[in-house]
Amino acid sequence: MASVVLLSVKQTAQTKAKRCLGTRLRGLAGADVASVTLLSGKEWLSRGWSLRFMSHGTAGRSGAGATRRGALAFSGAAAVTAAAVVGLLANANHFQRAEMATRILQNAKKKKEEKEEEGSIAERCRGFMSAPVTDISVLEKRKDEMSTKMEMLIMETQAEFCKALEAVDGGKFKVDKWERKEGGGGISCVMQDGKVFEKAGVNVSVVFGYLTEEAAKQMRSRGKVLKGKDGKLPFCAMGVSSVIHPKNPHIPTVHFNYRYFEIEEEDGSKQWWFGGGTDLTPVYIDKEDAFLFHNTLKEACDKHHPKYYADFKKWCDRYFYVRHRGETRGIGGIFFDDLDSPNQEEVFNFVKSCARTVVPCYLPIVKKHLNDSFTPEEKDWQQVRRGRYVEFNLVYDRGVKFGLATPGSRIESILMSLPLTARWEYMHEPAKGSREAEMLEVLRNPKEWA
Amino acid sequence: MASVVLLSVKQTAQTKAKRCLGTRLRGLAGADVASVTLLSGKEWLSRGWSLRFMSHGTAGRSGAGATRRGALAFSGAAAVTAAAVVGLLANANHFQRAEMATRILQNAKKKKEEKEEEGSIAERCRGFMSAPVTDISVLEKRKDEMSTKMEMLIMETQAEFCKALEAVDGGKFKVDKWERKEGGGGISCVMQDGKVFEKAGVNVSVVFGYLTEEAAKQMRSRGKVLKGKDGKLPFCAMGVSSVIHPKNPHIPTVHFNYRYFEIEEEDGSKQWWFGGGTDLTPVYIDKEDAFLFHNTLKEACDKHHPKYYADFKKWCDRYFYVRHRGETRGIGGIFFDDLDSPNQEEVFNFVKSCARTVVPCYLPIVKKHLNDSFTPEEKDWQQVRRGRYVEFNLVYDRGVKFGLATPGSRIESILMSLPLTARWEYMHEPAKGSREAEMLEVLRNPKEWA
Repeated sequence: MASVVLLSVKQTAQTKAKRCLGTRLRGLAGADVASVTLLSGKEWLSRGWSLRFMSHGTAGRSGAGATRRGALAFSGAAAVTAAAVVGLLANANHFQRAEMATRILQNAKKKKEEKEEEGSIAERCRGFMSAPVTDISVLEKRKDEMSTKMEMLIMETQAEFCKALEAVDGGKFKVDKWERKEGGGGISCVMQDGKVFEKAGVNVSVVFGYLTEEAAKQMRSRGKVLKGKDGKLPFCAMGVSSVIHPKNPHIPTVHFNYRYFEIEEEDGSKQWWFGGGTDLTPVYIDKEDAFLFHNTLKEACDKHHPKYYADFKKWCDRYFYVRHRGETRGIGGIFFDDLDSPNQEEVFNFVKSCARTVVPCYLPIVKKHLNDSFTPEEKDWQQVRRGRYVEFNLVYDRGVKFGLATPGSRIESILMSLPLTARWEYMHEPAKGSREAEMLEVLRNPKEWA
Repeated sequence: MASVVLLSVKQTAQTKAKRCLGTRLRGLAGADVASVTLLSGKEWLSRGWSLRFMSHGTAGRSGAGATRRGALAFSGAAAVTAAAVVGLLANANHFQRAEMATRILQNAKKKKEEKEEEGSIAERCRGFMSAPVTDISVLEKRKDEMSTKMEMLIMETQAEFCKALEAVDGGKFKVDKWERKEGGGGISCVMQDGKVFEKAGVNVSVVFGYLTEEAAKQMRSRGKVLKGKDGKLPFCAMGVSSVIHPKNPHIPTVHFNYRYFEIEEEDGSKQWWFGGGTDLTPVYIDKEDAFLFHNTLKEACDKHHPKYYADFKKWCDRYFYVRHRGETRGIGGIFFDDLDSPNQEEVFNFVKSCARTVVPCYLPIVKKHLNDSFTPEEKDWQQVRRGRYVEFNLVYDRGVKFGLATPGSRIESILMSLPLTARWEYMHEPAKGSREAEMLEVLRNPKEWA
């Protein structure tokens, strides 16, 4: 979903970080002013539809410098080796020890993750599915900026996930690099009618330009007055998004999306926020799969905030709800939006942890069911569930709705989330006590899996 | 589409006819007040989405008595026999003769149509797919009221169409009579996986109740202040709606819908209007079919107003437009809404003419292609087109959107318009010069067929 990254506009937090937009928009200075009209996509901006994140920390204005300093201090504290852990633990009680051990090991893991990013931008780009949207030279020049870090993360996530899927399927992704004439572009990777996957799409997009006055008005109606220079509000949005529909009805569909948004006001101050999530849509419930999936996500969340998993799991169940059916789309996972606290670096680290769970969340499940046999009736039930997936995506998904209503969107990238095939049977109702009824029961009454 | 009948609310015309609502709502007096909340379906009421009919006559307040008198006078003028035509023609010039002949023959045909309705309500009901939604005794009691005439027309249209389809398919429609707890109900006839038809749905609904204050507010935002007794606005809405998806890709999909709406204000005055249309969605273009379909509709329109066909054909192309694809859904037909002039009886007669073209519009095309052979590639292209049909219905169709957002809607009746199967191929583009490309060309640039 190319335009998922354009989903929503943060109201609460602002930061004066002035890194991303200036550089990106300089290139547009002499060109026609690009615009994104929000006219018909206004639903997602109206109060009725908006889902706001109840902040866990303190959202607010924070200078970019302060953000960076905070991040540096934090990574300094993380510079302890696993060996040092033992000594520290000797002077603490059981609970303190457990807590300290957890913290120190987390910091060590974080340090390891940072190491992984130590190669030059150019070196890291070599492993991607395509050259990134932004020129490598530009990325190198501003490699400490959040927009660069995020673009690198979404490219890496795309590559890692695509390669894992290719390995299991034996097929190859078709890679399309596309440009958005209003500013930016994307890389769509699609595998269709593979051995394992009926349709697999992994999309990256990095778009920028100006919000029109109409869009700004929409935002005002959402409670936030945004002042732009001469009525124009520069924005920059990016994300990675994927939906995988396997052939075998015993392998669930997975979806994930991680995105970052910046918008600049008249006085040069910036609003920024992250959003995203990963969720699973099985055709038949397999409790072991559900536990693995949710616990992997919980582990990633717990590293950053003890309430993240519980809150984002609830949010996910609420968001992926097919209201007219009274069912959730699948068994959920996590979903969050407008995340802007405690600071940019920390939220980015959380998003990074989430993005890195995509493969461990899903691939073990794919591999487990790879050779499961299935009946034509099971395939039919999968097709009916696919129909519900289409209903959610076309009727409720804010990203899709917004994308379809935005001129210049790449429709094929937005709709690559739809399955290759789907089915609508009139008055379909599974027999009592069947495995199909068991699945429906879970969708009608979301469960706790972690 | 059960709730298509609830589509829109007329702003311009009002009449003091007080027949339908009082009788219907009396039964609700002691019960909980039924309500239809328009909360999430507000798009169709907003200016941005509304398609207003440019009236051909004079819309305005007209007393029910006057309407009935006008109608009687007109049917009196129609009481000339075909034999009398010859004598009259002798005293006129060529053009006069042609015009008079047309008029007199039309009147004779109209008289014949009226004769068809001469049986008692109970007798006519015997031919229906089910007992009507309203009790036959109630219909008998108020047989001159527009709500009764329209309920009889939609029941007759459903029966006539279902029987014609059964005759050609050999299968039988499954008939579901359902009740809406807030008031009214419907009859859904569905044939699935037949010999000729993959999925055929013909639905009747007759619903009534009160509009909530929220709904009234929505209407005010559309420019019309509606005052209800104690803030409640009684309404009554009914319609027949159908979508037929054949198996053979050489037989097109057809859709039609004819509906009637009444709403009562505080002072007892009523607003009423009709809406509807019939449109064709072929998988491959067959010019002969397109000519037959459009000319049959044009003939029905021409009997009532020389501009109806041209205007309603344009409206149809505009309405059934898949904006994000830059394509119309099919090759159109006619579409109109908010039709309330010159008077209730005349608009009803026009709607009746349209409803009676449904079989002659479509059945000859079905029969012509019944034994056409087709390739797997042609079937695939049909499935891709079906995907676009789903996109239109779930993303744009105001009836579907409104139905899904309305609590108490019968979802299965709303979504029976979706095909049994559909397909989404990434980046599907037909080869140049192919028959698939020829079809796309017509969808991208609507043509004149009559």
